[in-house]
Amino acid sequence: MAQKPSIPKGTRDFSPTEMAKRNYIFDTVKSVFKLYGFQQIETPAMENLSTLMGKYGEEGDKLLFKILNSGDFLSAVNPGELADPNSSKLTTKISEKGLRYDLTVPFARYVVQYQNDITFPFRRYQIQPVWRADRPQKGRYREFYQCDVDIIGSVSLLNEVELIQIVDNIFRNLGINVVLKINNRKILAGIAETIGEADRIVDITVAIDKLDKIGLDKVNEELLQKGVSEDAIVKLQPILKLNGNNEEKLNQIEVVIGKSEMGMKGIAEMRSIFGYLSAMTLETEIELDLTLARGLSYYTGAIFEVKSKDVQIGSITGGGRYDDLTGIFGLPGVSGVGISFGADRIYDVMSQLNLFPKDAIASTQVMFVNFGEAEERYCLPLLLKLRAAGVSSEIYPDADKMKKQMIYANKKGVKYVALAGESEITQGMINLKNMETGDQQLIKTEELVNILQEEAKRVL
Amino acid sequence: MAQKPSIPKGTRDFSPTEMAKRNYIFDTVKSVFKLYGFQQIETPAMENLSTLMGKYGEEGDKLLFKILNSGDFLSAVNPGELADPNSSKLTTKISEKGLRYDLTVPFARYVVQYQNDITFPFRRYQIQPVWRADRPQKGRYREFYQCDVDIIGSVSLLNEVELIQIVDNIFRNLGINVVLKINNRKILAGIAETIGEADRIVDITVAIDKLDKIGLDKVNEELLQKGVSEDAIVKLQPILKLNGNNEEKLNQIEVVIGKSEMGMKGIAEMRSIFGYLSAMTLETEIELDLTLARGLSYYTGAIFEVKSKDVQIGSITGGGRYDDLTGIFGLPGVSGVGISFGADRIYDVMSQLNLFPKDAIASTQVMFVNFGEAEERYCLPLLLKLRAAGVSSEIYPDADKMKKQMIYANKKGVKYVALAGESEITQGMINLKNMETGDQQLIKTEELVNILQEEAKRVL
Repeated sequence: MAQKPSIPKGTRDFSPTEMAKRNYIFDTVKSVFKLYGFQQIETPAMENLSTLMGKYGEEGDKLLFKILNSGDFLSAVNPGELADPNSSKLTTKISEKGLRYDLTVPFARYVVQYQNDITFPFRRYQIQPVWRADRPQKGRYREFYQCDVDIIGSVSLLNEVELIQIVDNIFRNLGINVVLKINNRKILAGIAETIGEADRIVDITVAIDKLDKIGLDKVNEELLQKGVSEDAIVKLQPILKLNGNNEEKLNQIEVVIGKSEMGMKGIAEMRSIFGYLSAMTLETEIELDLTLARGLSYYTGAIFEVKSKDVQIGSITGGGRYDDLTGIFGLPGVSGVGISFGADRIYDVMSQLNLFPKDAIASTQVMFVNFGEAEERYCLPLLLKLRAAGVSSEIYPDADKMKKQMIYANKKGVKYVALAGESEITQGMINLKNMETGDQQLIKTEELVNILQEEAKRVL
Repeated sequence: MAQKPSIPKGTRDFSPTEMAKRNYIFDTVKSVFKLYGFQQIETPAMENLSTLMGKYGEEGDKLLFKILNSGDFLSAVNPGELADPNSSKLTTKISEKGLRYDLTVPFARYVVQYQNDITFPFRRYQIQPVWRADRPQKGRYREFYQCDVDIIGSVSLLNEVELIQIVDNIFRNLGINVVLKINNRKILAGIAETIGEADRIVDITVAIDKLDKIGLDKVNEELLQKGVSEDAIVKLQPILKLNGNNEEKLNQIEVVIGKSEMGMKGIAEMRSIFGYLSAMTLETEIELDLTLARGLSYYTGAIFEVKSKDVQIGSITGGGRYDDLTGIFGLPGVSGVGISFGADRIYDVMSQLNLFPKDAIASTQVMFVNFGEAEERYCLPLLLKLRAAGVSSEIYPDADKMKKQMIYANKKGVKYVALAGESEITQGMINLKNMETGDQQLIKTEELVNILQEEAKRVL
């Protein structure tokens, strides 16, 4: 016998049960995106390498999956070049395309390519897999889905507010308690400016980011090591010791960075966002968190991160405002704001907390047991009626042993099994067995559709 | 300015309108699959090349997109091998993975890999993109979606019947008039056997397949050229001149091939399938068509093909019974039957016939015009209520010129625009403009949710 086949490491197959759960997440996310007026786009799995290279740093370039040119890919390589055992040099000769690494760069490419067709502000969402040649490990895959939602072409802070509402709406629908942490790049810049270390914004933020993990003393030590002046570190202390609610925190920050124009702009942005939110009833806890940095080089305004309150896991959603996403493709000055939902982590959280509704992951509602030709003739018209009424149903295709058919129904998670043997047929009846409770009821065939249709409606 | 970015030839971006239409097709297909008790699986985009190679013939191997091994992919290649300018030899050294070429081989791999977890008969569907390094041309892409539905692990002809019902149900829901052509490999084998050319089944079927295009005389000529005996060709004539309804055709075939056991088995299968179907009211025309061959080497029983009646285009769905799909991966003797829906061609047919329902591809139901801060404060609570009521809605994020906002609403296909200026606010009213008819009505804000919610319900 041949060796059992397998799939590449870091990739996954999804079974029917896993797919039902994943679809529940995707469907929820999509329906909220639509509710807020966002429209879907899709881009190809493959992009030209010229589109992808240099966009994710040197490390990212290495993590791109590259596709071998088709046909005789060596014909364009001269023997001298071929003799050079330098993989990365040869790569550019034999590969022109790569697999999408994220949805952000393809989106930027899309916006620039179709700039004349797009009506701005463009509210788009995109749910597609991405591929990274990362070392596979628990919870990190080489193929995984991203769910991105962005508004591009508007600087209004209402957009930030809408994204926060979307976060609230989606996690409320999914039943996950979350905290949304929010920060602002302009405030961070204001802090760096105020303490006289404007160029050190990255060092400072990286250090602040460790506050929770290593404590105040160690953070101060690290700042000193990085070359931040003692004077600056002293000035920074009130920022590191921030407390109170978001409004109180903003007031404390204002005291420190009040003279930085950039910093005050960040504070004003946050106050405006919090102002909008105060008129809404969100279930999500919103927390101003200056330690939040997330790809700082990229964001220019608000920065978001969402964490589950009940499961210890990294962020399950994140994003922020960027002012020059499309500049890399020659269209500068287009501001946007977006967030990305991490489907795999959301899946893990929901699995751990047992949050998938039973009905959402149910399979067939009713299966007819197959006792042979005569019984088939009796059941098939009923099957037609059920399906016409929208009731998910099937008949076991072979007249196998009853036990085998019941095992099938049970393993598949079929809700009801319908049995019609000789005596039922004579009476014009059918036996309906609830597979969960084991209850069995003898009903008239005319009742069958009504009973199951009512059930199906309740589920919807 | 940088050159406008582009995408690899043969690949496509999908705009919001295209996505809405594609989703309409996929959602319809999926909902019918579910109604018939099929469950979804997904497999990774990348498979090991050992899984893919040799499964699609020599030509297919060339059309596989191969992925360059990550890291220093030349380290495992010795300089001597590298000096050999033979692309295909080097490929196996520097590439271990390829992109999925279809959904059939990954499904076979899946069934073998998880044979102990799967409950047979396994009713699965799968909707994912596949990639082929074909020369791009009109209607042929290097990345396209397949929608496959199969029942594996049961020889019952009820499965064939279910697939025909699914075809009927899906195209009825989509509004496409179709003819489903059906043939049976066993009948073809019986014909070849009867005319004494059992080994020539492929040649004969290829020739029969051309009947519509080149006519009877040329077909006979071709058969002669291929070495089929004159005697055999004479025997074949009644088959080539078949007419009448399906039952009459079967009777005529029976006269010719009645002594072939295999052939009679095929006729019995067809009679059984037609028998089941006669008890159902299908809109689809079912036509026995002996010229239908489709990947003959692969199918062992029924063969299906679906064509649009109103648009000249190749088959939009096809499939058949196979008896040894999983044998290639070491699990012999598992019979299955499946069909594949061609999303791109279905899309083209629906576009040509203008079959996409307006509501299915609608975008936001209502957009609030943004007149500034005071008006925002008036509109935002209404927006909250609408979304809570499930009405897809948005507010234009900036207080731009009215004209710009109306152009946005118009281009996006927004159904209603809601306007609240100073006078409306004073009265507690809102102006609701139907963007299609141009009608405008002044209504109380309390009525807004009801009116739009009723509309949204009608659409569902």
